[in-house]
Amino acid sequence: MKITFLLSGKTDRSYLLEGVHLYEKRLSHYASFRIEVIPEVKKYKSLSHEELKRKEGALILKKLGKEHFVVLLDENGKEYSSVEFAGFIERHMAITGKDLIFVVGGPFGFSREVYKRSDMKLSLSQMTFSHQLVRLVFLEQLYRAFTIIRGEPYHHN
Amino acid sequence: MKITFLLSGKTDRSYLLEGVHLYEKRLSHYASFRIEVIPEVKKYKSLSHEELKRKEGALILKKLGKEHFVVLLDENGKEYSSVEFAGFIERHMAITGKDLIFVVGGPFGFSREVYKRSDMKLSLSQMTFSHQLVRLVFLEQLYRAFTIIRGEPYHHN
Repeated sequence: MKITFLLSGKTDRSYLLEGVHLYEKRLSHYASFRIEVIPEVKKYKSLSHEELKRKEGALILKKLGKEHFVVLLDENGKEYSSVEFAGFIERHMAITGKDLIFVVGGPFGFSREVYKRSDMKLSLSQMTFSHQLVRLVFLEQLYRAFTIIRGEPYHHN
Repeated sequence: MKITFLLSGKTDRSYLLEGVHLYEKRLSHYASFRIEVIPEVKKYKSLSHEELKRKEGALILKKLGKEHFVVLLDENGKEYSSVEFAGFIERHMAITGKDLIFVVGGPFGFSREVYKRSDMKLSLSQMTFSHQLVRLVFLEQLYRAFTIIRGEPYHHN
């Protein structure tokens, strides 16, 4: 099983990049993992939020194949504990043959078409994290999930 | 009103430090804010988790004064949305004369004595974040709360 983390827009914060690279490297020991970045559509300032979402949505949809089980990181998604999230990853690995793709959208959320194509919505918190920070938080959770699955001592609680 | 963020143990990750400094600086425009660090007790390897918690708890209690409304960052705490958290900060500023102190404990949680002294427990997520990352996540939320209170455009959702 491959795992992809699909992001909209590059991070411009060097400290986040360092953290993202750290977890990316750690994750590579557990799974075939990669980060893919689609161009940010933020620059089209004349467009409405709806139009921006649709434009970004079209770019996201291009990246999604039949082989993907699509998980949107969405504030209205299901909340898991870290142990429950690890359980989800483990069950997914055991049961479906599909590759996992986790998608972080832009600041205005996902287009209707992207929601329609998705298989699941996941919320990291009831709080809204910056679209930059959510990357680091998610990668840490994915790494934590694998350490839980393997029974490794990273996850203390 | 002063706001203190009380941490157990220094961060050893340079990328997190950079992020923490960034939000610390941003927060200083909105409130009298400071970060205080108590020494980590992790090094006493011969102690049980309970003894470690008690030792750390004693260090935390020393930092808490009568003027403090004590909020523990705890996985069993109340979950707020970012807007609800901003509402809590705003009501607190308007109603009580007490200074706010937010406390992050070590990997084994808080001692009974610290729970007893606390006024509130706050959970950032059902997921468990690393004790290092929780700092950055919390600071971003506190910064976000002030931008929400002021009606500034940082918080999109």
